[in-house]
Amino acid sequence: MTTTSVTKPYTFAKSQAAFARATRVIPAGIPGHQGPSEGCYIPNDAFPRFSSRAEGSRFWDVDGNEYIDYMCGYGPNVLGYGDPDVDAAAAKQARLEDVVTIPSAIMVDLAELLVDTVRSADWAFFAKNGGDATTLAIMTARAATRRKKIVFVKGYYHGVAPWTQKLDYPGVLEEDVANNLDVPWNDLVALEAMFAANEGKIAAFISTPYFHGNFVDNELPAVGYWRGVRALCDRYGVVLIVDDVRAGWRLSLAGSDAHYGFEADLVCFCKAIGNGYNLAALTGKEWLKEAVASLTYTGSYWMSAVPFAASIATITKLKEIDAPRQFRAMGALVMDGLERAASDSGLTMITSGEPALFYLRLADDDSLIMHQEWVAEMVQRGVWVTSHHNHFLNASLTEADVARTLEIAHESFGIIAKRHGVVA
Amino acid sequence: MTTTSVTKPYTFAKSQAAFARATRVIPAGIPGHQGPSEGCYIPNDAFPRFSSRAEGSRFWDVDGNEYIDYMCGYGPNVLGYGDPDVDAAAAKQARLEDVVTIPSAIMVDLAELLVDTVRSADWAFFAKNGGDATTLAIMTARAATRRKKIVFVKGYYHGVAPWTQKLDYPGVLEEDVANNLDVPWNDLVALEAMFAANEGKIAAFISTPYFHGNFVDNELPAVGYWRGVRALCDRYGVVLIVDDVRAGWRLSLAGSDAHYGFEADLVCFCKAIGNGYNLAALTGKEWLKEAVASLTYTGSYWMSAVPFAASIATITKLKEIDAPRQFRAMGALVMDGLERAASDSGLTMITSGEPALFYLRLADDDSLIMHQEWVAEMVQRGVWVTSHHNHFLNASLTEADVARTLEIAHESFGIIAKRHGVVA
Repeated sequence: MTTTSVTKPYTFAKSQAAFARATRVIPAGIPGHQGPSEGCYIPNDAFPRFSSRAEGSRFWDVDGNEYIDYMCGYGPNVLGYGDPDVDAAAAKQARLEDVVTIPSAIMVDLAELLVDTVRSADWAFFAKNGGDATTLAIMTARAATRRKKIVFVKGYYHGVAPWTQKLDYPGVLEEDVANNLDVPWNDLVALEAMFAANEGKIAAFISTPYFHGNFVDNELPAVGYWRGVRALCDRYGVVLIVDDVRAGWRLSLAGSDAHYGFEADLVCFCKAIGNGYNLAALTGKEWLKEAVASLTYTGSYWMSAVPFAASIATITKLKEIDAPRQFRAMGALVMDGLERAASDSGLTMITSGEPALFYLRLADDDSLIMHQEWVAEMVQRGVWVTSHHNHFLNASLTEADVARTLEIAHESFGIIAKRHGVVA
Repeated sequence: MTTTSVTKPYTFAKSQAAFARATRVIPAGIPGHQGPSEGCYIPNDAFPRFSSRAEGSRFWDVDGNEYIDYMCGYGPNVLGYGDPDVDAAAAKQARLEDVVTIPSAIMVDLAELLVDTVRSADWAFFAKNGGDATTLAIMTARAATRRKKIVFVKGYYHGVAPWTQKLDYPGVLEEDVANNLDVPWNDLVALEAMFAANEGKIAAFISTPYFHGNFVDNELPAVGYWRGVRALCDRYGVVLIVDDVRAGWRLSLAGSDAHYGFEADLVCFCKAIGNGYNLAALTGKEWLKEAVASLTYTGSYWMSAVPFAASIATITKLKEIDAPRQFRAMGALVMDGLERAASDSGLTMITSGEPALFYLRLADDDSLIMHQEWVAEMVQRGVWVTSHHNHFLNASLTEADVARTLEIAHESFGIIAKRHGVVA
């Protein structure tokens, strides 16, 4: 089957002009994921660079093009852009105070809410970046165990602090990563061997709750995996750190460790914790509280009251609407729909990971270029998906949005199939 | 002369109740400077723990006590709490968008404003913490020079990342600080000897623009010091990093390097850059732009649009009112007035550092306890000064506020003099 294009592709003149300005005064123009190289934007000029407005499930670029957004700011947008309840709570707090010489008591309200909500949490500590939380977690583990080594899962990402980067990345020293070990995902045998070979030297095992790496299909934990990890950590005296920065608040409000039936020693939160208001948190077990308190660890904005108010409103609303259940249902609709739409054009879309954070791979081309071309067709027709990173759902996404998404996907698959001579 | 107390000291029942709640769910109750140990609060129960409201030059604690605030949230409050122009700009941006999948074009506007305003800046990179900027600076220097070592000034503070902590701090490894060297402040001979002894190995020299360390009198740069540092860095191929996180935007809007007559290669900004809205920036020279672009360095909230809007409004207003000039005049009033008020009670108050960030030390007692007692008397009467950290001025502080401050200081010095048997 071939499909004729019925949607006029977007153009991006204003984005391109703004990007030309950006390249003069900002390294790389736009750093990070949203930049040209990291995002694997092929071709680069098929994508907008700058947004002008966002509301609910959508944003608009500077040329006025509208997008149904499946990236949600790379995670923070969990309720919908500009959620009225969150914004009202934040505005109310902003009229009182934000960053003050002594913290607002609302910090305690949020800590109590986290302890009540996150199953493994006996306390909470607040910061700004997910990487502030992961760095605090490994420093806490090292202070508590007086050991140095950290075991990672191959393909890990836990922020951009030097200790969690790779030796071949610019600006990183061998000293930064000298105590890093790694094991494959879902491999209890390798983990036990690593723990045994380094007995008494391993401070922590750090992992995301499931494997949502980039450039590879995402993998859920095998049956018994996390129970086995918990048992090994207990046996070898290793602090179990779950990096829930990406998956947190989307799988379960009790923490992704609770979702998978275990309790971590430390859980790192960020992104969705405040629906975009800038906040990160580390929660943990009572036995590690003194170790956290012993560290020198503070930041200029870590007690900003407005993000605390936003986070209380966000978590309260996520509970009220049972957002994780909604994400499971809606994510399954998107995943199934995309697989079917691809199939209609003779293509094979592999979906993986949790529905709330589904990962996509067009399996007809190992070079990944065909996948990137499909993404470009989608974006130019108003559906923001991305190339080799998991997606994110938000609670304002409607079934009508998904239906429109699948129409555009159908059209985009047809264009790609035709271009590459694939016959349905 | 003895002074009779005429102001009824504050009490803190609600603060103490909230702190008891906090200690159950937050490590140390309140982490960082505002906590009981770091702040050297002697006695602890003489201080409030939590704020409820802030406006202009003042904040109110949860018991309703009012303070004229000389800490300004440890720096962010530069125009006055709840500045109407900054808050209006932020609210306008918030109605459009904040954290979105692709950045707002307002990021480019702010980068252009920084490049126009900061004399040594050819580009700007945005993040959340001052420590994000200092870490990016040293990684940039290492990537650009392919060298490892960093030279610090003894007594330094550049955030809480492991590389900038001390070996005897909990959670810090020898590997974290293996490439750190240090020299005394204002010592060109020691700096040259260090550069010569480690030729070809030093990536960067990082320093605040003047020495505003804790627990010691602050020291301005000696005549010719910074010109000498610039020449040595040029001769030895060392990247010159100014950490302007504390002093930035208060000495000069062109950067504290410009204030002292030189140009750094990289300047780290945070705190006052957005009047409390959560934002940090690194600015730098053209020759380092590619090195920054080569790094893996990104964060979930680093392109939040609301802090960009707040920063544009903050910098614009600081220019309009020539805030640095106002801070110099007002800081001199406070410093001179405190010295005189102490002298009236037979005490010696030593003031040091730049007037915009004055440092205080009651010189009559080497144990520092008498100083802490004086701080406690001030705070209990509505003037928030602190023990062994520089202070911060904001532009909403009035001469009437300063007059009231000096009245309370006079009374507080009298109480301390009487308690310790000092005769004027």
